[in-house]
Amino acid sequence: MTYCCGILVRDGLVMIADTRTNAGLDNVSTFRKLHIFEEPGRHVMALATAGNLSISQAVISTLQEGLEDPETGEKRTLSEVSSMFRGAELVGAAIRHVHKLYGEGLKESDIRFDVSFLFGGQVNGGRMRLFMMYAAGNFIECTSDTPFLQIGEHKYGKPVLDRSITYDIDLYDAMKSGLVSMDSTMRSNIGVGMPIDVLVARRDAAQSELVHRIEPGEPYFHDLRERWSAALRAAHMSIPRPPYGRGK
Amino acid sequence: MTYCCGILVRDGLVMIADTRTNAGLDNVSTFRKLHIFEEPGRHVMALATAGNLSISQAVISTLQEGLEDPETGEKRTLSEVSSMFRGAELVGAAIRHVHKLYGEGLKESDIRFDVSFLFGGQVNGGRMRLFMMYAAGNFIECTSDTPFLQIGEHKYGKPVLDRSITYDIDLYDAMKSGLVSMDSTMRSNIGVGMPIDVLVARRDAAQSELVHRIEPGEPYFHDLRERWSAALRAAHMSIPRPPYGRGK
Repeated sequence: MTYCCGILVRDGLVMIADTRTNAGLDNVSTFRKLHIFEEPGRHVMALATAGNLSISQAVISTLQEGLEDPETGEKRTLSEVSSMFRGAELVGAAIRHVHKLYGEGLKESDIRFDVSFLFGGQVNGGRMRLFMMYAAGNFIECTSDTPFLQIGEHKYGKPVLDRSITYDIDLYDAMKSGLVSMDSTMRSNIGVGMPIDVLVARRDAAQSELVHRIEPGEPYFHDLRERWSAALRAAHMSIPRPPYGRGK
Repeated sequence: MTYCCGILVRDGLVMIADTRTNAGLDNVSTFRKLHIFEEPGRHVMALATAGNLSISQAVISTLQEGLEDPETGEKRTLSEVSSMFRGAELVGAAIRHVHKLYGEGLKESDIRFDVSFLFGGQVNGGRMRLFMMYAAGNFIECTSDTPFLQIGEHKYGKPVLDRSITYDIDLYDAMKSGLVSMDSTMRSNIGVGMPIDVLVARRDAAQSELVHRIEPGEPYFHDLRERWSAALRAAHMSIPRPPYGRGK
């Protein structure tokens, strides 16, 4: 399982991904799911992945090695795209390329071609954007009405984001919300686990501001979990009991 | 869609169910999903339903009208069972009976035999119990380690229950947690909606203490939603910003 969220606010982009993968409950490992493509001054892009690990890794490697253009024969890599939209199109093309290679064989093994991506960043001084990409290579874009997108095990952590994320919040408050959302998810699904990778990219900085891995036992994250639990308990206590029956 | 939760604490049982059903997004209706079987002094039982409405209604009607015993020819109803375990077995038999009638036809129409139940209560001075029942008629029992069970759209509302429900909390605090959990679910999935039906049965009272429908706009529930939102915002504010990057 996987949980990744991307948050795009006025000040910039936050992307957060867990690192737990499993092929059955008896085969649990740690793999990086947040991949960063950066050339300071020109572009910063990040791809967070969910779904079948062999598929997502094949897509990432294709984007690094280059996807051959069927007309010109040229190899196109993510580092050369002229805009985020062109980048998303290239990611989509890489997904379809990998589908062409393995889709049929997976089907024969009764394995679904299951993969999804969050693709965020800024290229060449263009607009900072965040996309969610599906297995067919199609995608939707995050807008200021709901300034976050999630892939993987998204339900447990959504109520927190629904209530705390608006387009105008501070970038590190957005990260804090994302971490609380990750904590809620990890608590409810053991298929999502530490360490956690985070990226912060400030709008128009043309480079990442923070690339960090939160390891198990890290004091800030431990404190965040404790405080959030305590605050929820207090919030709960502060609500009066229902006035029905003998509750009043 | 549906969300129901059952909470079994030291003092008794709380069951909460929404009432929204939909056959496609363009066909949304209100149906009771919390069904109560009660004979004060002898038993109080409640069945909350999720899944295909025609299946769950057929099971409920079968339990009311009586399920024929294949050996004796006698009709058995839920009101005559000698214990909660026998009741759960009868509900299971009713599910299998309905599956026999409609399972094949549903399959031909590519409709899954999708149904689940929460079955809680107390019979004849026996142990108060809460079961979750699956489409094959099999079931699991709620225990004090995790004193709640959920059916339907369970993920959005689980983090709240995980953090607030213990076996020792007051019965109406348990209801309050259940209502907050319902609120989180309704906020994230429009397939779950008001009004909300609640049951409270105190242990060894041999009758329900409260059977209530919370209608839209009811002041207590409205206040609970507002307070919970405000408390979450405050909880969020009270956590320091991440000390990474420029967040510190």
